[in-house]
Amino acid sequence: MSDHPTIALTRELIARPSVTPEDAGCQQLIGERLSALGFNLESMVFEDTTNLWARRDSQAGGLFCFAGHTDVVPAGDLSKWQTPPFTPTDIDGVLYGRGAADMKGSLAAMVVATERFIAQYPEHAGSISFLITSDEEGPFINGTTRVIDTLEARNEKITWCIVGEPSSTKYCGDIIKNGRRGSLTGDLVVEGIQGHVAYPHLARNPVHQAALALHELAQTQWDQGNDYFPPTSFQISNIHAGTGAGNVIPGVLNVQFNLRFSTETTDQALIERITQLLDSHELEYKIDWTFNGQPFLTDSGSLVEAVQSAVTRVVGNAPVLSTAGGTSDGRFIAPTGAQVIELGPVNASIHKVNEHVSHDDLIVLTDMYEQTLIELLVTRA
Amino acid sequence: MSDHPTIALTRELIARPSVTPEDAGCQQLIGERLSALGFNLESMVFEDTTNLWARRDSQAGGLFCFAGHTDVVPAGDLSKWQTPPFTPTDIDGVLYGRGAADMKGSLAAMVVATERFIAQYPEHAGSISFLITSDEEGPFINGTTRVIDTLEARNEKITWCIVGEPSSTKYCGDIIKNGRRGSLTGDLVVEGIQGHVAYPHLARNPVHQAALALHELAQTQWDQGNDYFPPTSFQISNIHAGTGAGNVIPGVLNVQFNLRFSTETTDQALIERITQLLDSHELEYKIDWTFNGQPFLTDSGSLVEAVQSAVTRVVGNAPVLSTAGGTSDGRFIAPTGAQVIELGPVNASIHKVNEHVSHDDLIVLTDMYEQTLIELLVTRA
Repeated sequence: MSDHPTIALTRELIARPSVTPEDAGCQQLIGERLSALGFNLESMVFEDTTNLWARRDSQAGGLFCFAGHTDVVPAGDLSKWQTPPFTPTDIDGVLYGRGAADMKGSLAAMVVATERFIAQYPEHAGSISFLITSDEEGPFINGTTRVIDTLEARNEKITWCIVGEPSSTKYCGDIIKNGRRGSLTGDLVVEGIQGHVAYPHLARNPVHQAALALHELAQTQWDQGNDYFPPTSFQISNIHAGTGAGNVIPGVLNVQFNLRFSTETTDQALIERITQLLDSHELEYKIDWTFNGQPFLTDSGSLVEAVQSAVTRVVGNAPVLSTAGGTSDGRFIAPTGAQVIELGPVNASIHKVNEHVSHDDLIVLTDMYEQTLIELLVTRA
Repeated sequence: MSDHPTIALTRELIARPSVTPEDAGCQQLIGERLSALGFNLESMVFEDTTNLWARRDSQAGGLFCFAGHTDVVPAGDLSKWQTPPFTPTDIDGVLYGRGAADMKGSLAAMVVATERFIAQYPEHAGSISFLITSDEEGPFINGTTRVIDTLEARNEKITWCIVGEPSSTKYCGDIIKNGRRGSLTGDLVVEGIQGHVAYPHLARNPVHQAALALHELAQTQWDQGNDYFPPTSFQISNIHAGTGAGNVIPGVLNVQFNLRFSTETTDQALIERITQLLDSHELEYKIDWTFNGQPFLTDSGSLVEAVQSAVTRVVGNAPVLSTAGGTSDGRFIAPTGAQVIELGPVNASIHKVNEHVSHDDLIVLTDMYEQTLIELLVTRA
């Protein structure tokens, strides 16, 4: 069994069953390691969520931040796990357990990289911080967003942030995320008049009324995207009408749709266009909007350059920049003006049974994080 | 309490809780009364369903048939009934109980009208029959359709048929049904490819693919109807897609629709048009068809004239002919070449709690049935 300190710390974190919003002692373990390095710890508990803001100031310069989460998604069907999900198990150079890849391995790599970096460069420029939450996989109400609110209120600004989300697909570092699309959900209710299919003149079928509007929404070109973002996409995720009986005209149609949108538009512009389209069909409807975050982009700057340089140095290839995929807590950090990059291990097994991370990914990721610190706080400082 | 024999027999039938496919002794009761009149009784039991075919031959001439069902729909929420559903209860000239209007009152009126008619005209022309099932409110597989199959196999033909379905809306005899629309149900499954809303290029949304086809189906003018039928109507009764999760593109769309169609088209013609329309949208789909009966029409002839004359004589107004409303067992009888009319009491309370029929309706209906027998088997014979 490898005794690399990142692998060892990952095991300790996996053994703590921190299903959202539980932290299960993970932040205390990380805090003890950071405290030993001279970090000042600030625990921020909001409702059911435990957050850790840890900061160590060295010299003048920017504030670097490692951001991540200790919570994991539920284990799911235990009978399908080859090993117990909260018992870290090494098989053939791979570490199995819930959270191995998303993202306890990244947290361990951040801690170990920081330990090495400070040991080597105790008088580095700038400052280092950790922003750790236990509410990333859940409703994300009391986690990163409230820590950021707290920091903003006291004008504490992050310059550069690496989020440890598993960004990689084939090998660690092949892809880094330099932004994410925005996400907007609409819950549409179209009202009709229920009735018997034998008496259609006494009813009004909301499915018939809405079908063309739904077609037009599905066909709309919202934008063309840009160099960093694919075009905004619209998807109906759920549609329901009917009592189950074959002879009843439904009285109401429920449709849920989601937009993943580029920096070429905004949530307000999308809401306006969709409302206009629905109004043009003279539907009797109401709609509830859930806004899940604006798109963000770190298209250039010292952080992108430092991470590209660090990854290239460790694995020999430059990483591909991408804004694809789901949301992450980066959406809460980027609006403060921070440069934000996501870099983490291979994501093939996340949220699935038998989640795992390779020992190699953990070792390589530690080196990449350490090299990034060197680039930003020593070489380029 | 009125001691009119139709009201008394209706009470006896309501007291037998004959929820589909149970007959609960109703046919035995009716059979005893008919047997006393010289009817030959033939019980036809198919699977869970009891049917009675009773026939009395007098002179040469046509075969008249009273058709109906002893089964009733379930009582539903007992707490909402003002009186126990299977305890016949008279309040202010109204008889309450499940089946009072649909259609135990009609069965009682048929029996009493026949008793009176035979007593008065023992040597009438033609023959009289009763076709009674206990499977009209259910799947209608082992009821009237199988009795008709049996009669057809031995070339036993009904000339005129009155079905006792509650055809009236404001007073007994205001409307008689001289036909019914056909009914065709389609269960459509559109196959897509499930995926994550963040990766739409890896998925194929069946809701998006099918929306325009559904719009076109809903807008199609299938025909213009004719003097007796309104235009064929298409209604989507159920539509479902989605896992419930807001970030998953559904892999399959289920749509159920129903057509009520006139004699201007056929089930085969409708299936062909709908298939062509769906094919033109290049959907990956399958569809199951449930055919619930061809439309039928008795637009003229001695039965229509006799019933019109009988109703006018009893209530002073000619009845309106209609083909509106749901299906009835008339659809199984009409294709044999029989003239078919539906005449029964006011239908406002059928299939609801506190189902009821007025004493007046039962008395008037008995007179109408008796007058019809006189018209067909005496006056016009």
